[in-house]
Amino acid sequence: MQPRAIELKGLPAAGRRFPAICAPLVGRTRERLLAEVAVVAAKQPDIIEWRVDFFEGIAHTAEVIELVAQIKHAAGAIPLLFTRRSAREGGERIPLSEGQVISLYRAVCQTGHVDIVDFEMSNHPTDVLEVREISQAREIKLILSFHDFDGTPPLDVLKARFAQAERMDADIAKVAAMPQSMDDVLTLFTATLQSSRELAIPVISMSMGRFGAVSRLCGWAFGSAMTFAVGESSSAPGQMPIEDVDAGLALLQKAFRRQDL
Amino acid sequence: MQPRAIELKGLPAAGRRFPAICAPLVGRTRERLLAEVAVVAAKQPDIIEWRVDFFEGIAHTAEVIELVAQIKHAAGAIPLLFTRRSAREGGERIPLSEGQVISLYRAVCQTGHVDIVDFEMSNHPTDVLEVREISQAREIKLILSFHDFDGTPPLDVLKARFAQAERMDADIAKVAAMPQSMDDVLTLFTATLQSSRELAIPVISMSMGRFGAVSRLCGWAFGSAMTFAVGESSSAPGQMPIEDVDAGLALLQKAFRRQDL
Repeated sequence: MQPRAIELKGLPAAGRRFPAICAPLVGRTRERLLAEVAVVAAKQPDIIEWRVDFFEGIAHTAEVIELVAQIKHAAGAIPLLFTRRSAREGGERIPLSEGQVISLYRAVCQTGHVDIVDFEMSNHPTDVLEVREISQAREIKLILSFHDFDGTPPLDVLKARFAQAERMDADIAKVAAMPQSMDDVLTLFTATLQSSRELAIPVISMSMGRFGAVSRLCGWAFGSAMTFAVGESSSAPGQMPIEDVDAGLALLQKAFRRQDL
Repeated sequence: MQPRAIELKGLPAAGRRFPAICAPLVGRTRERLLAEVAVVAAKQPDIIEWRVDFFEGIAHTAEVIELVAQIKHAAGAIPLLFTRRSAREGGERIPLSEGQVISLYRAVCQTGHVDIVDFEMSNHPTDVLEVREISQAREIKLILSFHDFDGTPPLDVLKARFAQAERMDADIAKVAAMPQSMDDVLTLFTATLQSSRELAIPVISMSMGRFGAVSRLCGWAFGSAMTFAVGESSSAPGQMPIEDVDAGLALLQKAFRRQDL
């Protein structure tokens, strides 16, 4: 069975490619971000993620709004994913209350410049519901995500996280965990494979750090619909350069697609 | 913990590289084999395997002996693995009795031109014992192997095969299985990872066919000390070209070796 691809406006985000390759932007200033998006867009990832928690001006909604338009312009046809990663789940500390974060998501969604937003499923349920409503109103896809930077929970917990995203009405479920050994990588692969069959929405997963490097290149074979790769700077440990992910996927999938095997 | 590498005369067969890359020779005639070894040796695998069951002249010991010397010469410093894969485990049909096969192994070992021999652990125990004695007398390493071309046995059976090789005094244990789904690939990875820790000898494993393609590139991360890659022709389904394995390993291991992850 073919795992589900990420779709935007009814079309696969990465065309015939599976998985989609997503490159993050982590610049702290407007100047850095605009330089970064130029470099990253030239490498033609399928999706560009703006990790707005890295942006020093995050408290100034007007600045964020202006910048999202400029990033969208620079990204051209490449869809934009907007993410405030919470400090609780590995993001940067920001000077905003959760209420202000919701207002920011609302303002950004209303610009029409973003195609997907990511929000942690561990946020307050009413906040998750509100981000769901804000995004749905603009036909923006919602990733509900779970991150564990300290370890890899057991199989049933990982699977419960994927299922929770679907239950909370996500369009896409994302789970990222840090392996302490290769056993943890196998646990994450197993959870991804089973969840990709059991759920109706696409799933994204990654095992972080050096042990998890194989997941950046092989996660798709176990059902993960997206892999994060470095355009200019990484946003999480273990991400490989886009060029390496492109090359590695091409040679693996050449073998995988051969019908005579 | 670093998994055990294959050693020849006290030195790692692949230098500082893990896993070793082994390319098979499957020519049916002397002329084809000599052309094949020239092409394959130029690609510098760590080990070259002569799958003698493909050779039309296998019943003529003198021809095999002469050819093994020529192959060794062409291989230069690259160690030689000599394998008669039994038809029961996916090899070619040959016009030799098992007794004649043992005599062939004895004659080949006595030339001093081979560094490793592979023999199926499912052969008659006295035959396994004899191949062990023949090889040991010449300081030739012995791989005891198990192949399932129809499916992937459950975890405990796979682990029992690795353990059986060690119990039968192999220097290296090899298990190859055909996955029917990605679940089977995960089972093989799990068996390999656990066996690589529990046994005192190096282990080799591969999940064959298209589903198993990821194992050709990532098996080392789960403890497999050798991967088979195509120099000129493949000897089993799912093998990738040496160039692809080289490139894929390099980019994966660049990420895996980073100490900052």
